[in-house]
Amino acid sequence: MKILIIHGPNLNLLGSREKDIYGSKTLAEINSKLKALAKEICVNIMIFQSNHEGEIVDTIQKAKGYGAIVINPAAYTHTSVAIRDAIAATKIPAVEVHLSNIYGREEFRHKSLIAPVAAGQISGFGPESYLLGLRAAACIANAKRGHSKKKTS
Amino acid sequence: MKILIIHGPNLNLLGSREKDIYGSKTLAEINSKLKALAKEICVNIMIFQSNHEGEIVDTIQKAKGYGAIVINPAAYTHTSVAIRDAIAATKIPAVEVHLSNIYGREEFRHKSLIAPVAAGQISGFGPESYLLGLRAAACIANAKRGHSKKKTS
Amino acid sequence: MKILIIHGPNLNLLGSREKDIYGSKTLAEINSKLKALAKEICVNIMIFQSNHEGEIVDTIQKAKGYGAIVINPAAYTHTSVAIRDAIAATKIPAVEVHLSNIYGREEFRHKSLIAPVAAGQISGFGPESYLLGLRAAACIANAKRGHSKKKTS
Amino acid sequence: MKILIIHGPNLNLLGSREKDIYGSKTLAEINSKLKALAKEICVNIMIFQSNHEGEIVDTIQKAKGYGAIVINPAAYTHTSVAIRDAIAATKIPAVEVHLSNIYGREEFRHKSLIAPVAAGQISGFGPESYLLGLRAAACIANAKRGHSKKKTS
Amino acid sequence: MKILIIHGPNLNLLGSREKDIYGSKTLAEINSKLKALAKEICVNIMIFQSNHEGEIVDTIQKAKGYGAIVINPAAYTHTSVAIRDAIAATKIPAVEVHLSNIYGREEFRHKSLIAPVAAGQISGFGPESYLLGLRAAACIANAKRGHSKKKTS
Amino acid sequence: MKILIIHGPNLNLLGSREKDIYGSKTLAEINSKLKALAKEICVNIMIFQSNHEGEIVDTIQKAKGYGAIVINPAAYTHTSVAIRDAIAATKIPAVEVHLSNIYGREEFRHKSLIAPVAAGQISGFGPESYLLGLRAAACIANAKRGHSKKKTS
Amino acid sequence: MKILIIHGPNLNLLGSREKDIYGSKTLAEINSKLKALAKEICVNIMIFQSNHEGEIVDTIQKAKGYGAIVINPAAYTHTSVAIRDAIAATKIPAVEVHLSNIYGREEFRHKSLIAPVAAGQISGFGPESYLLGLRAAACIANAKRGHSKKKTS
Amino acid sequence: MKILIIHGPNLNLLGSREKDIYGSKTLAEINSKLKALAKEICVNIMIFQSNHEGEIVDTIQKAKGYGAIVINPAAYTHTSVAIRDAIAATKIPAVEVHLSNIYGREEFRHKSLIAPVAAGQISGFGPESYLLGLRAAACIANAKRGHSKKKTS
Amino acid sequence: MKILIIHGPNLNLLGSREKDIYGSKTLAEINSKLKALAKEICVNIMIFQSNHEGEIVDTIQKAKGYGAIVINPAAYTHTSVAIRDAIAATKIPAVEVHLSNIYGREEFRHKSLIAPVAAGQISGFGPESYLLGLRAAACIANAKRGHSKKKTS
Amino acid sequence: MKILIIHGPNLNLLGSREKDIYGSKTLAEINSKLKALAKEICVNIMIFQSNHEGEIVDTIQKAKGYGAIVINPAAYTHTSVAIRDAIAATKIPAVEVHLSNIYGREEFRHKSLIAPVAAGQISGFGPESYLLGLRAAACIANAKRGHSKKKTS
Amino acid sequence: MKILIIHGPNLNLLGSREKDIYGSKTLAEINSKLKALAKEICVNIMIFQSNHEGEIVDTIQKAKGYGAIVINPAAYTHTSVAIRDAIAATKIPAVEVHLSNIYGREEFRHKSLIAPVAAGQISGFGPESYLLGLRAAACIANAKRGHSKKKTS
Amino acid sequence: MKILIIHGPNLNLLGSREKDIYGSKTLAEINSKLKALAKEICVNIMIFQSNHEGEIVDTIQKAKGYGAIVINPAAYTHTSVAIRDAIAATKIPAVEVHLSNIYGREEFRHKSLIAPVAAGQISGFGPESYLLGLRAAACIANAKRGHSKKKTS
Repeated sequence: MKILIIHGPNLNLLGSREKDIYGSKTLAEINSKLKALAKEICVNIMIFQSNHEGEIVDTIQKAKGYGAIVINPAAYTHTSVAIRDAIAATKIPAVEVHLSNIYGREEFRHKSLIAPVAAGQISGFGPESYLLGLRAAACIANAKRGHSKKKTS
Repeated sequence: MKILIIHGPNLNLLGSREKDIYGSKTLAEINSKLKALAKEICVNIMIFQSNHEGEIVDTIQKAKGYGAIVINPAAYTHTSVAIRDAIAATKIPAVEVHLSNIYGREEFRHKSLIAPVAAGQISGFGPESYLLGLRAAACIANAKRGHSKKKTS
Repeated sequence: MKILIIHGPNLNLLGSREKDIYGSKTLAEINSKLKALAKEICVNIMIFQSNHEGEIVDTIQKAKGYGAIVINPAAYTHTSVAIRDAIAATKIPAVEVHLSNIYGREEFRHKSLIAPVAAGQISGFGPESYLLGLRAAACIANAKRGHSKKKTS
Repeated sequence: MKILIIHGPNLNLLGSREKDIYGSKTLAEINSKLKALAKEICVNIMIFQSNHEGEIVDTIQKAKGYGAIVINPAAYTHTSVAIRDAIAATKIPAVEVHLSNIYGREEFRHKSLIAPVAAGQISGFGPESYLLGLRAAACIANAKRGHSKKKTS
Repeated sequence: MKILIIHGPNLNLLGSREKDIYGSKTLAEINSKLKALAKEICVNIMIFQSNHEGEIVDTIQKAKGYGAIVINPAAYTHTSVAIRDAIAATKIPAVEVHLSNIYGREEFRHKSLIAPVAAGQISGFGPESYLLGLRAAACIANAKRGHSKKKTS
Repeated sequence: MKILIIHGPNLNLLGSREKDIYGSKTLAEINSKLKALAKEICVNIMIFQSNHEGEIVDTIQKAKGYGAIVINPAAYTHTSVAIRDAIAATKIPAVEVHLSNIYGREEFRHKSLIAPVAAGQISGFGPESYLLGLRAAACIANAKRGHSKKKTS
Repeated sequence: MKILIIHGPNLNLLGSREKDIYGSKTLAEINSKLKALAKEICVNIMIFQSNHEGEIVDTIQKAKGYGAIVINPAAYTHTSVAIRDAIAATKIPAVEVHLSNIYGREEFRHKSLIAPVAAGQISGFGPESYLLGLRAAACIANAKRGHSKKKTS
Repeated sequence: MKILIIHGPNLNLLGSREKDIYGSKTLAEINSKLKALAKEICVNIMIFQSNHEGEIVDTIQKAKGYGAIVINPAAYTHTSVAIRDAIAATKIPAVEVHLSNIYGREEFRHKSLIAPVAAGQISGFGPESYLLGLRAAACIANAKRGHSKKKTS
Repeated sequence: MKILIIHGPNLNLLGSREKDIYGSKTLAEINSKLKALAKEICVNIMIFQSNHEGEIVDTIQKAKGYGAIVINPAAYTHTSVAIRDAIAATKIPAVEVHLSNIYGREEFRHKSLIAPVAAGQISGFGPESYLLGLRAAACIANAKRGHSKKKTS
Repeated sequence: MKILIIHGPNLNLLGSREKDIYGSKTLAEINSKLKALAKEICVNIMIFQSNHEGEIVDTIQKAKGYGAIVINPAAYTHTSVAIRDAIAATKIPAVEVHLSNIYGREEFRHKSLIAPVAAGQISGFGPESYLLGLRAAACIANAKRGHSKKKTS
Repeated sequence: MKILIIHGPNLNLLGSREKDIYGSKTLAEINSKLKALAKEICVNIMIFQSNHEGEIVDTIQKAKGYGAIVINPAAYTHTSVAIRDAIAATKIPAVEVHLSNIYGREEFRHKSLIAPVAAGQISGFGPESYLLGLRAAACIANAKRGHSKKKTS
Repeated sequence: MKILIIHGPNLNLLGSREKDIYGSKTLAEINSKLKALAKEICVNIMIFQSNHEGEIVDTIQKAKGYGAIVINPAAYTHTSVAIRDAIAATKIPAVEVHLSNIYGREEFRHKSLIAPVAAGQISGFGPESYLLGLRAAACIANAKRGHSKKKTS
């Protein structure tokens, strides 16, 4: 099973800045942890980061073979109907993750445009949010595959 | 007379997904219909699709020779001040079209940032929205050209 | 196929007043154009105008034989739940048209109570809005008839 | 004792359409039930239906001899200050009834302009709403008459 | 000079009901006072009352010869875009009057849809509101006529 | 058939206080009337009062054998998602009743969290609200039972 | 009978500026007209202008002998609870006047803090607003005096 | 390390009702899974369910020895400031979990009063939400203990 | 004279937690101070604390012999219509107190459901708020008793 | 220790007007009571009243030697950012007092701009509010002085 | 060329208080810097400070000879329609300056009533805001003078 | 010292279109003026324009060596959380500039998502906004450098 990991805008800066909010781990370190967990729970992951809304939309559209998406839409969480529509269109189950607890921050960060079309949301656990997200994604993708198999058999 | 057709984000997925909302016609099929109608009513059309807000802005900025624009801004309808400003800046009359009836969907889709600077809006008729939009655009562009000719003569 | 055209309140004044918003064509001239187009595309049309909300409701209720309705609810667009309910009750597909771009005018004109129960909406093209609306209505009515025939055959 | 029953706009269509919301009983059937109950509880009823806000206002104004009004204002529930003012002006106690549970439908149907000047409101029980409403009206009218008699004696 | 006086819905009940809000004068008494003042200040007045929004719209549309309109839209003050549009369309200056101080009553009565297109508004002085309104209307109509004469001479 | 009657917080004080709003009947008197009507229309009723949200939730959860619930949620009408969820979970049809006309009182009492999941709502008729509510509940429960019988037979 | 005329902030600039909104008459000219009308209808007037909220409050507090106040609160219409409270405290009937139609201007000018405690409001008739206001004030003051006399006699 | 699991109101009904939203697993089955995972990751868990807001507050107050709390506040998520204050007061890190995706349901379920004081939130993964929540809680509690140890050593 | 002191949810934790907001005094220490002041000003006090909304309602209902209530509703300040209704029903004057300045904290704490039915409110003075509240309650209860005595004598 | 008492606009009218809201005590009587209490609790007070926002700001700015301020901002409570900023700037602890229960009056009086920068607020106890406010102010000023002394010693 | 500098309420306290928000420079120091820059760029400046809204209005009204105004309205930024109207009335271009970044502070400071009638706004640069404001004002005044000269020559 | 100048979407069209709002200067002319001023005040500037939100984010992320950023986010001012987050992440002080007075335009342009994380904002002075912005940026960057030097020395 393949799972696509998408990091949204400014997450490439992780670890070097605003450590009080986002922690001191770099994106590379988070990706290593994700790869280790992926190996442990036997899934293949593909990792993508972009600051461009359009590129994230493109990437989601091309995710056809994947069993699930783990996405931290970052700033686009609150402003991108395009990413929301892409997720809804592809129908690949998406797990929305956030490093910080978005409900404890500025008012405008409390509203996610992505959440209503995501399978579920995990926020506030730092890098652990991604690991929990990967577990959730694997779990959903498996359930779905099992379901499809039964149907086709 | 030349008319520019712009398809916004995720419209490249048409026909294969969410058929209950967007119908079963692919974008290629809609484009064929547009070309056929263009021939019938004697206008030249140029067709462009992008998932990137910036590319749509770029394209509108370069539309100088065109008599009118038919645009389905899709997700950017509700979030892009940049596309709105580009349309307002170029002053080429724009016809906003939507496949689905946006007023019968989620609350946040009821508000179009583009509509106040568009010449008019057509929504809810499926692929027919584009054909009606092309007719409207041709009509406006003709009226404008007639008007300009009189002025210069 | 028969299509019902309904002109809402104050549209009987068209052509003689507020030409900057509504243009200089009279309602009679618009009706002539509608009849010409109806002949061209082979549909029968019946035209009705009233300033009374109740009469418009009555008329919609009696539209049983019609394949579609083209309605410019004018002022009642923003205040009439009764017309909305009548359209929803009869289930005859309705095309909402507006001469002016209602999204470029006062705030209270941006919200249509009719739109969510209409098949679609066309606004901003002056008298052309009606002609496009008639085409759209014919198109929907045809599709529906085709669909019914298949079902019954 | 006389009680006036008022059916608002589109209720004349009952039974033939949108049966999932309004049920399959026709207005005639509801009226029969109302007459039967009226006989049983010994009140005289007068029944009126109109799609015209003004006619409903006229009718309420002329209700002077009646002990109470049972009114289903339908669409006018949410838009008619005129009917509200007429009820307040005549001071005849009014019982507001609705077939469907208006609080389980679209947001704009949750707010009744009539309720604050009505004696009470009954909604959601289908045709039974009318029967309960007639009972309530008889009860209020009786209490009032008793009260008046004591006063004058 | 001719001035049209329009009394909106429920004003025919004046004097007999809700005297604490609307006073004890009947509509006939107010009309008498209006006629007396009209004679005094040398204007002709025509008086019209209706509970029907559509009839009021019809009446305003036919007011072509009149120099000004004095209108108490009553309940329609807060709900009728159709009356607003009729006033805006005819361009005859309209003076909006109210018996009660609408700003000291329920929240929904604070907002007038008519006020933005009226020449001015007078509220809270009981029957005196009409007399002041007639004076204001005469004054505006005179100014306008003077202005037109100058233009044409 | 068994029907459960639930009285919410502070209703145990009825009759001794705030008689202008809630009337002078005590809860015991209302319960007597309910029992009399129950006998008359041949249903068994169980009556429960509590000031504790949690106890009301517990009671609803245990209502399995009952054909319907008549509930006056009183203060919890406007604040309890837990009672709403309990009603939705048990799927026993619930009739929401109020002694006073909640739409004629403070703004925050106009919104019922219970109404959208109730079968219907009756408000404003004093103790009569309960009697009408019991009739409505019996009616719904009967219809449901009839429906189930047909299904199972 | 004495009537106090209060001109609020910036009204001392009348006639020399923003003539499109406020007209070309100076405050002195308006005052002359007021004095002439006062003589005609036999009332004494005292005129006061200030840009200071506190001075207007002081002046209202000292108005004890006056039968009525005519006040154009200008900018303080929308921001001064202090002037509102002063009017409410003195209980001298106040007529609120505005030169321009405040309901046809910026949103924040639609709401008057003064109106709910004023006897009535006149807006939109230019300098004529003051003259109508003086008539209204005289009328109210007379009615009140008549009422007091009867009481004391 | 000990972790406290709190199930809010109506969760005792899981598995038997509204399976389309909450799934077919009973609370007992979820608890078994939690116990199995707890054993696997070497933590002790204590499980508590209540429909009473006050009891949940009491339980949180007594959680002193626990390293973390996993709480599904269910209906109280949206209405209980008391539970929020209890969590904030005890300062034991709390993980908020939801079976369903609360952001894809009714508007009033989108706002959590608990989230701003929780460490993080997990929603939408059915029973898996609890298992992810337990992992997250163990992770946070360990980090905290490690941190404390360093401090004290 | 007897005065009832009610401490709402989580106040039993005072002194040990969140000292920056609530200070370092325990509830026992506050109660001691209250008892000392009660002795000094010659009133008897009864003290009650609960985390359960229903228990607080029960307690208020049973307060019949008391001259006044001093209540710190804590979290229930912002969510409990039931406590509000209980206070309104018993008509015993209630003094609402808060340790912290609720107007300097989170937005949702600015609105008290209790305040409109309380005699008055004291907030922000730490434990001193209770002492001032007891003085205020004694003062009100005395005034009331004096008033009653005069009446009965 | 010196404490500054500030009475806002219209409070100089106390006792002679609107006695149902503000009571029958004059400002002089309240001041006498304040002086008596000041003597009793051994503080010096300075009393100031003004209807001018600017003068109140000036007075607060010059309060440097004072240990605390007791202020009834009256109408300026709801409109004056300037007074708020003056209090915040001087950092002298301020106790906000109100004669009436502002939370039981008009909506616009529920919001205090002063409260977030005040030490605390007391409202609803009539003249007693001032006396409680003086006690609170003395208490805070003492605590502060004690704190400063310790620091400097 | 003459430029008027207006400092609003509480700015006379600068330098001694709340240095974290407003910096440690006194108003005198800022004024010195302004005078130095004025000399350098060859403009005459007049400096005025007041805590009184009315005095600021008076001063703006008397600014006739000035080419531009630099105004820091401080607290009145958010509450004074009177200052807004004075600026609009005099038509002297005004530059609004703020020491702090008002968009990074409390919600109510985000809205300026002055900004829509100012030429432009500069905020957030501490004393530098004034210097930039003076440059901007000189620039606008020069442009205007050049424009006027051309016109008159 | 190096300063980065960022021009947002559609600013490349400056000078040729919508001159009434944005003036007749081209972007090239503004850039020339910026370079001239940069030379005069001895700073190096780098200039960048893009219509793509993602490219602007990328550019801000790479600005590490720069002392300050001058950014006109144009349309993205109101919609881009990504640019806001990029500025907050890099911590390079940013000066937000606008050619037009955004507070005098459409409602949706009054709210800047960038302003709360910018050092300050300058709007309304046409091309002069950029020059003032460059001065402000140089000033802030110098202050910061001086501050850093002191720290490190």
